Amino acid sequence: MIVVMKGTATARETGAVLQTIEGLGFKPHISSGEERTVIGIIGNDRKVESSAFEGLSGVERVIPILKPYKLASREFKQEDTVVEVRGCRIGGRSCVVMAGPCAVETREQVMEAAARVKAAGASILRGGAFKPRTSPYAFQGLGKPGLEILREAADKHDLAVVTEVISVQDIPAVVEYADILQIGARNMQNFNLLEEVGKEGRPVLLKRGMMSTIEELLLSAEYILSKGNYNVILCERGIRTFEKFTRNTYDVSAVPVLKKLSHLPVVCDPSHAAGDRDLVPALARAGIAAGADGLIIEVHPHPEVARCDGAQSLHPDQFDALMKEVAAIARCIGRSI
Amino acid sequence: MIVVMKGTATARETGAVLQTIEGLGFKPHISSGEERTVIGIIGNDRKVESSAFEGLSGVERVIPILKPYKLASREFKQEDTVVEVRGCRIGGRSCVVMAGPCAVETREQVMEAAARVKAAGASILRGGAFKPRTSPYAFQGLGKPGLEILREAADKHDLAVVTEVISVQDIPAVVEYADILQIGARNMQNFNLLEEVGKEGRPVLLKRGMMSTIEELLLSAEYILSKGNYNVILCERGIRTFEKFTRNTYDVSAVPVLKKLSHLPVVCDPSHAAGDRDLVPALARAGIAAGADGLIIEVHPHPEVARCDGAQSLHPDQFDALMKEVAAIARCIGRSI
Amino acid sequence: MIVVMKGTATARETGAVLQTIEGLGFKPHISSGEERTVIGIIGNDRKVESSAFEGLSGVERVIPILKPYKLASREFKQEDTVVEVRGCRIGGRSCVVMAGPCAVETREQVMEAAARVKAAGASILRGGAFKPRTSPYAFQGLGKPGLEILREAADKHDLAVVTEVISVQDIPAVVEYADILQIGARNMQNFNLLEEVGKEGRPVLLKRGMMSTIEELLLSAEYILSKGNYNVILCERGIRTFEKFTRNTYDVSAVPVLKKLSHLPVVCDPSHAAGDRDLVPALARAGIAAGADGLIIEVHPHPEVARCDGAQSLHPDQFDALMKEVAAIARCIGRSI
Amino acid sequence: MIVVMKGTATARETGAVLQTIEGLGFKPHISSGEERTVIGIIGNDRKVESSAFEGLSGVERVIPILKPYKLASREFKQEDTVVEVRGCRIGGRSCVVMAGPCAVETREQVMEAAARVKAAGASILRGGAFKPRTSPYAFQGLGKPGLEILREAADKHDLAVVTEVISVQDIPAVVEYADILQIGARNMQNFNLLEEVGKEGRPVLLKRGMMSTIEELLLSAEYILSKGNYNVILCERGIRTFEKFTRNTYDVSAVPVLKKLSHLPVVCDPSHAAGDRDLVPALARAGIAAGADGLIIEVHPHPEVARCDGAQSLHPDQFDALMKEVAAIARCIGRSI
Repeated sequence: MIVVMKGTATARETGAVLQTIEGLGFKPHISSGEERTVIGIIGNDRKVESSAFEGLSGVERVIPILKPYKLASREFKQEDTVVEVRGCRIGGRSCVVMAGPCAVETREQVMEAAARVKAAGASILRGGAFKPRTSPYAFQGLGKPGLEILREAADKHDLAVVTEVISVQDIPAVVEYADILQIGARNMQNFNLLEEVGKEGRPVLLKRGMMSTIEELLLSAEYILSKGNYNVILCERGIRTFEKFTRNTYDVSAVPVLKKLSHLPVVCDPSHAAGDRDLVPALARAGIAAGADGLIIEVHPHPEVARCDGAQSLHPDQFDALMKEVAAIARCIGRSI
Repeated sequence: MIVVMKGTATARETGAVLQTIEGLGFKPHISSGEERTVIGIIGNDRKVESSAFEGLSGVERVIPILKPYKLASREFKQEDTVVEVRGCRIGGRSCVVMAGPCAVETREQVMEAAARVKAAGASILRGGAFKPRTSPYAFQGLGKPGLEILREAADKHDLAVVTEVISVQDIPAVVEYADILQIGARNMQNFNLLEEVGKEGRPVLLKRGMMSTIEELLLSAEYILSKGNYNVILCERGIRTFEKFTRNTYDVSAVPVLKKLSHLPVVCDPSHAAGDRDLVPALARAGIAAGADGLIIEVHPHPEVARCDGAQSLHPDQFDALMKEVAAIARCIGRSI
Repeated sequence: MIVVMKGTATARETGAVLQTIEGLGFKPHISSGEERTVIGIIGNDRKVESSAFEGLSGVERVIPILKPYKLASREFKQEDTVVEVRGCRIGGRSCVVMAGPCAVETREQVMEAAARVKAAGASILRGGAFKPRTSPYAFQGLGKPGLEILREAADKHDLAVVTEVISVQDIPAVVEYADILQIGARNMQNFNLLEEVGKEGRPVLLKRGMMSTIEELLLSAEYILSKGNYNVILCERGIRTFEKFTRNTYDVSAVPVLKKLSHLPVVCDPSHAAGDRDLVPALARAGIAAGADGLIIEVHPHPEVARCDGAQSLHPDQFDALMKEVAAIARCIGRSI
Repeated sequence: MIVVMKGTATARETGAVLQTIEGLGFKPHISSGEERTVIGIIGNDRKVESSAFEGLSGVERVIPILKPYKLASREFKQEDTVVEVRGCRIGGRSCVVMAGPCAVETREQVMEAAARVKAAGASILRGGAFKPRTSPYAFQGLGKPGLEILREAADKHDLAVVTEVISVQDIPAVVEYADILQIGARNMQNFNLLEEVGKEGRPVLLKRGMMSTIEELLLSAEYILSKGNYNVILCERGIRTFEKFTRNTYDVSAVPVLKKLSHLPVVCDPSHAAGDRDLVPALARAGIAAGADGLIIEVHPHPEVARCDGAQSLHPDQFDALMKEVAAIARCIGRSI
């Protein structure tokens, strides 16, 4: 951590900073320039909060040097983490595709979706039973019966299940039926929920909040890891910006950045970023080309009657074509699907 | 709702849209221009989701015309809502000030803060017992003992208490000690929590998420109102933008916009927006000048040793001076403090 | 400047950084922590570009410590700059109001606007003769005849004139008729234009770009100051964010921030930020309450037939009422209008 | 265009809107719902500005239905535009790579860069002779001597030249030496410059402003097209968002969106988006996978001593490896490099 003093700071103010550093058990390191005095803190100061200095008078700003997360960092663990789910390895040489409808609507819908995504090469079935919706008047999902449908369809086609858990009370039900617990974008900083899924051993798909920095995503992963659950998969799904042509702005750069900073697997969700099925194939290809470990894609057997996100759901035929393209691209960079 | 067809849409595709509208029980209204066909839906279509049309082929875009919230809207209720808390009226002619430390740290700290903010003219004591923190390694608050301290200090100085509730499990404890339940920015779209505080009759201070639109804030209020709790106070506390000099960008325009769209009271939190105590007085004055019904401000008896947000907490002396300024400004626009 | 080395940096890589610093004539200052080596540069390194180090291997990041602008900074000149224009002092104790139509349309329109804004207390007439428009098909302004109209109306009512200059070729014409040259938001980083208005002695109203940081605004001012023109007035007019209810997000915090960082006067443009006349009075009041040295406001005698920005132009009667409010608020903080 | 009236609009206010529409020569089309009256304008209203209605009382909002650009739209011209430059076709089946240093520094540097990028498969040499810089104290480029160096190096290696023009005065010099005139991100809305390069027949590379929407980019292209110059190449180079880990946020979705909306070729600039050479290969691959017609990449023979953007410039060896990867990916989607 580096404390930059104001140009007008007095010796007394600088002294108070030095005392605070020593009081916390660290060694200060002063550099006095012509216009500014800068004080470095030597040691592992990761648990020192910058507020320890920001409130002191004469301090201009505090700059952290160490990354605030540890367990999630590539420095802590250099080799890639591989999350294993029913024989499927996420984060290894092969890219993994999760696909299925936005929301579980009927048994027929999910059975048909499962058959089609399996045939095209997906290995994990996605679908929402509990849906967080911006409006209280929107369809909120089938709840537990939706979980049963997902499990039945997945078992019939030898697929794993990923589905969202939106509150601590629902964890036991979701754990009973799903292989991967999804934390949605709006819950990325629901710290209580993160801690509770951290206590379960079950793999977690952690979506980046639409308002969250890459660093905050890794800190949310750290909440889960610090409870002893190392099976975390990160997911880029678009961030909120001024550009409104797409539903969100797909931050494809997050893929190489996360792979550089962290050992955790990274998948991309082009469907929620695009909000428009015409754009999904291009974004899915871009994600794999950028080095993602997999994709999560909305596929609906009849998108025109979907109760949720129909505009961004692929027709099964479009999904078939896309799977061929992404498999070819994966091979160009030494991977497979 | 207006459905805009693509320039290339066929008669069959247009027909499918018309059939869908009629199937939902509404009357379609077609306008055929040279380059586009536009179909209006006549009636109260607030509960129709745009996804009902977005998934249909030939549709270019769907534009909602009615606002998606109802109970929170000024059209639904024209007169201002006044929330009453221990004799204090929020949303009336008089502006209300809530003040106190970011986090409850010790009994002495809170007793001292309460005495000072009361003397300066505040009527509600703020302070966090449960703190949502971006990092799992940061100070997370004292929990229930913190609530007890808040209550004791408030009672001694005849103040009401506002404090944050961060999970459904904590609601009973917070309801026992606090007069107003605060929903923090990170929980603005924790819909489960919104519904549960909606079931309590207790007034709710709902903070705008740092990446939430004004419309989303009103939809989150709608979650609470639709459960029967009409005592909701909206709070602008800064949004996330590209500008990093301030902690967040204080969207002071949200004040007149919310007052125009909704009957609910609106308060401003200049402390979290600024992140720097030097800026807080200017932002507090701007909020009152823009028409806010009150302020929530961080004041710490000794900001230099605060465990949380010390840089943005006012010294009690600064708070005294600020209260005089904002009271004068309130009078300029026909209000008081 | 501080150079943070990667955790994996070798002694050789660190050595190359030290050599580079010495080669530039500065003294390096090394701090070696457990996890990172940090190298400070001692001296006035304002002209060293961070690219001098960012390209070196082993470097994690480069953090500037000194502000990159100098002439515009409060450290360089502590007392407030007051720009004098025809007897009107901008940046002094009294706040100054500039008002008039978005675009010059007809002689009658401008004469009527000038009479009304003068009567209400404005001292400077605004109006666009050259209009930068997003679409090539939109009204682009009257050009030079528009300048003549502005001058005639201003002279009749003893007002100064502020008008936009959008290209270097137009500078001589604008200098002939206007007292203050306005650089619009889209030209804030048209560096060639900045240099040319810097060579004129004429006062400049420099608007913040809608996606520009406060630091970039001060660097653009530095372009003008560094050419010898110290008569620069900064203007906050709203930044682009995800919130679309308002045309732009009025960053009222920029007022106290700019007053803290710089000695230059700061005015607010609530009209372009709001995009809606119903919001303009609240934002104008907020700007003055936050400490702005003045306002620039769109007023049109008949906004319903305005060729440009009619929705955000005040009726003259609304402007009369607003002037009374802002004058009262100015007095609350020791100023006048 | 659709005019939505307020719920409280009177018959007189609605009548004024109808009159205005008819006065402009269009036919109004009224739909009266329970809560709102909506008025459609039938006909090609592209040149009607929404301000014609926004200023009228009783109007809630105005929604454009037609896109505001015409010549740049896919509807106006369905087949892809191919820009030909010295035998190189941009926008055809083959993807085109432009590469070279950020700034022209020395003859040796450019000669070496040209040799290496040509050998790796690039067909166009990039390099800045006139550099727009945020700070007046930063290196501003060699000017005309830089153009001579570029031309010499390009001719020796049979490459075309693309270089930035930053002001109208420089157009003749740049036209003399360059094959493609680049309009930089900061000048995307320098409308005067757009018009002047529109009058030249020379191909233009138009970079998206970091603050600009996709629609604004197409309107800026329209400025050039409307002057008779149809040889416009669009360039995505990253937008400004809250995420600061990358220099800008690479909006890869802009590629399929622009290809859908427009017939103009689209290239990607991963270097300026990333700001870090470690990320450039992933972003370059993503751009080609998303369907871009080409890339523009910074390559410097010795990035560690670059005077500008060294951190994001590839070493020539890295560029060699990247060219092989992007060529393979291009083939996966039916293209070549």
